[in-house]
Amino acid sequence: MEEKKVRIGLLGCGTVGSQVVRILQEKNADLSARSGARLEISGIAVRNLEKYRAQAAQLGVDETIFDTEIDRVIAGADLVIELMGGLEPARSAMLQALRAGKTVVTGNKAVLAESGPALHQTALENSADLYFEAAVAGAVPVVYGLRESLTGDQINQVLGIVNGTTNFILDQMTTQGWDYATALKKAQDLGFAEADPTADVEGHDAAAKCAILASLAFHTRVGISDVPVRGISQITAQDIKTAADNGYVIKLIAKAERVTTENGEEVALSVGPTLVPNAHPLANISGPYNAIVLESQFAGRLMFYGAGAGGSPTASAVLSDVVAGAHHVAYGGHAPHESAYAQLPICDPDRAAEKLQVQLEVVDQPGTLAAIAQIYQAGGVSIASVMQPPAQENRQATALVLTTHAAPHGAQRKVLEGLAASPAVKNIAATLPVLED
Amino acid sequence: MEEKKVRIGLLGCGTVGSQVVRILQEKNADLSARSGARLEISGIAVRNLEKYRAQAAQLGVDETIFDTEIDRVIAGADLVIELMGGLEPARSAMLQALRAGKTVVTGNKAVLAESGPALHQTALENSADLYFEAAVAGAVPVVYGLRESLTGDQINQVLGIVNGTTNFILDQMTTQGWDYATALKKAQDLGFAEADPTADVEGHDAAAKCAILASLAFHTRVGISDVPVRGISQITAQDIKTAADNGYVIKLIAKAERVTTENGEEVALSVGPTLVPNAHPLANISGPYNAIVLESQFAGRLMFYGAGAGGSPTASAVLSDVVAGAHHVAYGGHAPHESAYAQLPICDPDRAAEKLQVQLEVVDQPGTLAAIAQIYQAGGVSIASVMQPPAQENRQATALVLTTHAAPHGAQRKVLEGLAASPAVKNIAATLPVLED
Repeated sequence: MEEKKVRIGLLGCGTVGSQVVRILQEKNADLSARSGARLEISGIAVRNLEKYRAQAAQLGVDETIFDTEIDRVIAGADLVIELMGGLEPARSAMLQALRAGKTVVTGNKAVLAESGPALHQTALENSADLYFEAAVAGAVPVVYGLRESLTGDQINQVLGIVNGTTNFILDQMTTQGWDYATALKKAQDLGFAEADPTADVEGHDAAAKCAILASLAFHTRVGISDVPVRGISQITAQDIKTAADNGYVIKLIAKAERVTTENGEEVALSVGPTLVPNAHPLANISGPYNAIVLESQFAGRLMFYGAGAGGSPTASAVLSDVVAGAHHVAYGGHAPHESAYAQLPICDPDRAAEKLQVQLEVVDQPGTLAAIAQIYQAGGVSIASVMQPPAQENRQATALVLTTHAAPHGAQRKVLEGLAASPAVKNIAATLPVLED
Repeated sequence: MEEKKVRIGLLGCGTVGSQVVRILQEKNADLSARSGARLEISGIAVRNLEKYRAQAAQLGVDETIFDTEIDRVIAGADLVIELMGGLEPARSAMLQALRAGKTVVTGNKAVLAESGPALHQTALENSADLYFEAAVAGAVPVVYGLRESLTGDQINQVLGIVNGTTNFILDQMTTQGWDYATALKKAQDLGFAEADPTADVEGHDAAAKCAILASLAFHTRVGISDVPVRGISQITAQDIKTAADNGYVIKLIAKAERVTTENGEEVALSVGPTLVPNAHPLANISGPYNAIVLESQFAGRLMFYGAGAGGSPTASAVLSDVVAGAHHVAYGGHAPHESAYAQLPICDPDRAAEKLQVQLEVVDQPGTLAAIAQIYQAGGVSIASVMQPPAQENRQATALVLTTHAAPHGAQRKVLEGLAASPAVKNIAATLPVLED
């Protein structure tokens, strides 16, 4: 092999970064053979120099490699790996590297979901490459899948379980019968949830990933603010049990869909707890795993499955991008350009169709069901099924589980307002969208 | 966009080829935008000119585009799609195109499994690219996965359900209780099996795909003749039932594994019916679907799932390769080079370890189990469990289901010879390897 060399600058050296360093040293011969160039770490930007110098031997690097100056690490590298996380200084550092024509590899979903268009544009203008497999679903190669493997097809729907924390919590609620607070506590004890779990449990992390996936799938710029989000903190043990009784599991589903409205083709987005039929491939994705189902025009249904987070799986994704990027640095050529050529409009959430399951407590007297049916009919929402769960002791009201056909979210919302105002309805206990099988 | 153009020559226009033509016309704007160059079909090589000229309008192409001369179609193209199938003239045509420095896209697993090294070498020497996503598991992007997405990791095991025909037959036997002949007939009636089903049911198709996957996963040249094959035609309804009683389903599994023997690291290969524990992700892959599970050092377990065959899914895979290839033709750069740098030795099948389940009919008298245990002990194979199924009426002998720990295939074979020769054993009813969970 010709002795080409690619200098790698690393920004940040936390859980993922230290794994990247370790694997880059340990598997250097393999990774270099695959990229066709010797991979060499030229600098690692860290805040606390002393701390990392003390760990240098353990990481297998020289202690002079650590630097507090991001600029200097970027300047000394051909390829920059950004693993600092958070918006700044990560975003500025990436833009700076791209402007200098350097290849950037990142796992930073926050920056991509916020400033993806600016990053891609800067990359394009400077003939630089941006890789981000690690930003969505850890080691699961869905970014490659959308960016490269399925470019000959048309993606019509992306459905994903892309947040391991919420999947673990819902899984525990389902299998152990726990309530939300108990399951969250368990997840925190096991390190699957952070002390402040907001970003995960309220769906913001999943929304960022949803925006990235939608951008790739539909060649359209989608930002995190385009994604309506609902978290899992309101889900009760009873919701889980009712779902199970009716053949569903509740999962936090990120959904991005090509829809046809009166405006033509649009992209509909959502993240929220969803009733997944037991027979759906996503129903069986348990614990901290991630899975993404793509529905495509020609290939049909495809699923990608694997570990969604963790230092070592995420490092695996980063290093795959490093091998691809280093090969292009050494031999020319580029990553697929991020063409947002289609630029479909984002569908107004009120116009996006959903199949909704509603749990009602209703007054137990003749005419109740007719009154409810009348509210749905007036709202233009068609009822698919009504079930009355087995009678409970001491009940003050009758429970009904009502499932609609797909109808615009706005119409569904108006029906719910109508139900809330109806004397026939004592309480709307729960509303959850249902995934079509 | 700059108006670059890539001329595409198609060799063969059968089920997949005609779908490729149709989609290339129908989605031309999309596919061109994604590759950054206008994609234009410059010629289609067919045998029967009259037949195809009559279909030209239906396919959306000019009738002058058809040609009986493969040479002329290759000469007029920048990128050649080979979809003739079979060994010749496909192999020669691909070599000819690569020697002329042209990008080749193929779905021809037979040629790849037979002559992969020669094709890759010719591509390398002529700075030409060879793409073959469609050769394994239809639209499931496992070739991309291994070739690009997981280059930062180390693959330790590849397990696949890569033949839809056998998966459909075994599935029918499992769910309907049918015997092999009935299920095969059903598969033939539905078009899932060919009139001569040998290549599928005897495992040759799966072996070709196993060789391709192993080459990619282990950076080692593996040919179809390196893969020991066992087909499914000997599997009985009773085998399926016994498996189900013990918590397994029988699947035709292609397996390629990195193993450590006294010779160091080697690649162990096999294709054959296998007992898959119900909890394993491959146990639930039903009907004509394909799935590949990769066990990797850093990313852990990954699974890819989707339609394994069919004109339209296979065309999707071909067109993804076309988009990637056309982008490189227009803008420079190459597909990842097919580095067989590791070149691990192929493990002698007798040294490859397997966990085996054996169904025995034994004489019903004291000392039988001791005699059998003695044969295993002498052979150096350790027994994991022995089960005695519920007594059957009119039995002449006692049935035993015996499962071993993993032991070299050669040792297992010698034990089976010992059992066959033992007066304690009346019949060895079945032997099947067991997949570790």
